[in-house]
Amino acid sequence: MHIPESNLPRVVIIGGGFGGLQLAKKLKNKPFQVVLIDRHNYHTFQPLLYQVATAGLEPDSIAYPIRKVFEGQQNFFFRMAEVEHIHTHLQSIETSQGDLNYDYLVIATGSKTNFFGNEEIASNGMGMKSVPEALDLRSLFLQNFEQALLASEVAERESLMNFVIVGGGPTGTELAGAMAELKNHILPNDYPDLDIRRMQIHLIEAAPRLLAAMSESSGKKAYDYLTGLGVHVWLDTLVQDYDGLTIKTSSGKELQSQFLIWAAGVQAAGIPGLPESSKGRGGRILVNEFNQVEGFTNVFAVGDVALMTTKDFPNGHPMVAQPSIQQGRLLAKNLNRMIKNQNLKPFKYSDKGSLATIGRNKAVADLPGVHLGGILAWMIWMFVHLMALVGFRNKAVTFINWSWAYVQYDKGARLIIRPFKRKQKAEEMV
Amino acid sequence: MHIPESNLPRVVIIGGGFGGLQLAKKLKNKPFQVVLIDRHNYHTFQPLLYQVATAGLEPDSIAYPIRKVFEGQQNFFFRMAEVEHIHTHLQSIETSQGDLNYDYLVIATGSKTNFFGNEEIASNGMGMKSVPEALDLRSLFLQNFEQALLASEVAERESLMNFVIVGGGPTGTELAGAMAELKNHILPNDYPDLDIRRMQIHLIEAAPRLLAAMSESSGKKAYDYLTGLGVHVWLDTLVQDYDGLTIKTSSGKELQSQFLIWAAGVQAAGIPGLPESSKGRGGRILVNEFNQVEGFTNVFAVGDVALMTTKDFPNGHPMVAQPSIQQGRLLAKNLNRMIKNQNLKPFKYSDKGSLATIGRNKAVADLPGVHLGGILAWMIWMFVHLMALVGFRNKAVTFINWSWAYVQYDKGARLIIRPFKRKQKAEEMV
Repeated sequence: MHIPESNLPRVVIIGGGFGGLQLAKKLKNKPFQVVLIDRHNYHTFQPLLYQVATAGLEPDSIAYPIRKVFEGQQNFFFRMAEVEHIHTHLQSIETSQGDLNYDYLVIATGSKTNFFGNEEIASNGMGMKSVPEALDLRSLFLQNFEQALLASEVAERESLMNFVIVGGGPTGTELAGAMAELKNHILPNDYPDLDIRRMQIHLIEAAPRLLAAMSESSGKKAYDYLTGLGVHVWLDTLVQDYDGLTIKTSSGKELQSQFLIWAAGVQAAGIPGLPESSKGRGGRILVNEFNQVEGFTNVFAVGDVALMTTKDFPNGHPMVAQPSIQQGRLLAKNLNRMIKNQNLKPFKYSDKGSLATIGRNKAVADLPGVHLGGILAWMIWMFVHLMALVGFRNKAVTFINWSWAYVQYDKGARLIIRPFKRKQKAEEMV
Repeated sequence: MHIPESNLPRVVIIGGGFGGLQLAKKLKNKPFQVVLIDRHNYHTFQPLLYQVATAGLEPDSIAYPIRKVFEGQQNFFFRMAEVEHIHTHLQSIETSQGDLNYDYLVIATGSKTNFFGNEEIASNGMGMKSVPEALDLRSLFLQNFEQALLASEVAERESLMNFVIVGGGPTGTELAGAMAELKNHILPNDYPDLDIRRMQIHLIEAAPRLLAAMSESSGKKAYDYLTGLGVHVWLDTLVQDYDGLTIKTSSGKELQSQFLIWAAGVQAAGIPGLPESSKGRGGRILVNEFNQVEGFTNVFAVGDVALMTTKDFPNGHPMVAQPSIQQGRLLAKNLNRMIKNQNLKPFKYSDKGSLATIGRNKAVADLPGVHLGGILAWMIWMFVHLMALVGFRNKAVTFINWSWAYVQYDKGARLIIRPFKRKQKAEEMV
């Protein structure tokens, strides 16, 4: 892979998510040559993927061209490629587009869906970790209604109108809420000749409560909001198998459904080449408090893919945006300190709180010292997410879409641009 | 295909383009049961497809959910299906989702790319008649630059940065202009380590002038604008073959390019089942001045797919939006007259003029009695297209995108959401 020669040390960053992007931005005008590699040419704002899946936003609103972020940034190079192997003894990586040497390597590859080894669920259920996957979900969701209209058997029709979400974390909870809003406000108008009351939304969670990473009261509020919107919430229930038609649960109950979203777990999206001893729980890469991978001084991991265990976080930091952003930011500083032979600064996570939205005027927020619900939490959620989107254009377009949806009880993007074909997963199409 | 029973006569409309949509809308509250069938669940605003292909607009801005258009319209039914055959003797159509009887049938299937039988060009070149095709073009355009960065040979790099558009009608002209704007304002910032001056845009036209359907002066102005923006315009030149790498032209000159858009011709997108005698030039269906298909009183064709020859239009009406809209509108009236046993009204095309935009502040307009160019024509073009988009949300989002692009010399949607794989055409993926 050709990158112009430079006498600056080369930092190669794998992954243009929250961590990688932040790191590369903070290395602006610093004495490094920065190479960012990603399989996509855009950054994905993952917290809003569920809105793409539920026709609330266009995919382009939550994706931002990586090259655009770094316009005018000297010594920065983006390459679209898939990284296939890391060769630490050669200080080089192997990609789909040739090899590349590094002085410093930063692994910021994030996480991917964890089906916990269940091949059946993996092949019949759907994950939601990328824009193509969210688009596939949107297509399948709408296709199921078009199919339901044409179904001659009642059982077939109901199975098409049964939507099952596994996992009561933020993703599952927000998805279930958005689907309930579609059911309550939009689908009856779109499908006057279907009995939309027959549509069912099931949210299945293995733990005894929703939003396990948030406060008890937020979990309880989310439960109340969802059941109030008509979602069937199953707690203490494990999904054990899914053949594309029937969902088997630990409670013995079976559900007939042609739509299962698996949001019950993530695992590190690692790259082959690091010693097995550097892997921890969920495949995350063990790093010290400077994000250095165990056994290396010039190989780092940040964000979801990294496992940094501290007294406060014995199982590592939560796999969400904030730790990634903060680690990326700190690593930029530490790389600068490193080349000046200064001591590195250890990472200390500053928890800014967590938010989850369930529907119009309904959200929960755990902020430092206070737990909020209702319309106030909802407004905070909207403000925070709007501001976090990269770029003015994305903010403006999202603002219009949200305002429109709020005033009109409408969602604009109910389009099946590319029909989803079963057994042809987004990942294969990428 | 199940449609609720009704004692109203059933009008089946095939195709949710300009003609079909207009007809169905105008049949609101009239004594018919209306069934609209389309393979997509959205209406495509084709005049702006080229902006999707050149990263100026999101696909969702120019597509509009058909169900949304007809919300609350009694006796209207939409079904997403592919129509496979027409059986006029049975008064029924055969679809991918079962058969359906009709009392009145309206064929409004529009047009598709015409490669004039050249299989090589059809399989290696790309058309631009649908949203998935426009997205494929956008992906391939951007992929070529990412590839060019990684190419080690100069010849390979230049072939990736050579963009060839065949056909100097409105589509080819507008595409060439939009690409030139990308070259002049955006790509140098996105690809600082590529010499974007080496990028070439070729527009090849078989006739001795551009925009043959518009006035001489508009064609001349478009030529001047394009060459001023750096586009290589080849007039009197036929493209004879393309193997995916080399373009052979009638002038003997060959071009090396890995990107060829074929906008040199369209043909009717017909459906099997009508007698051969009802087909005219370009496969269009011969209709009388009431849009009745030759030999039938209850089968109609409107828009691009219909060939109505009149004194003013001996070769049929232009295959653009306006005749389709006007024919759809008149047919609604005539169906009403028909069931009242009144005489039908003949179609008379009201030419509202033609517009084509080339770049910022640069457009041409042939309006009744006057030919305009420059910024005035450009403003008219923007206003007309903005107003023609279906729905307030699409208008607002498009307005933001255009304003942003104008002020910032930027286009937001430079995303390769689904990489285009050669030999895997949009049509196959749909």
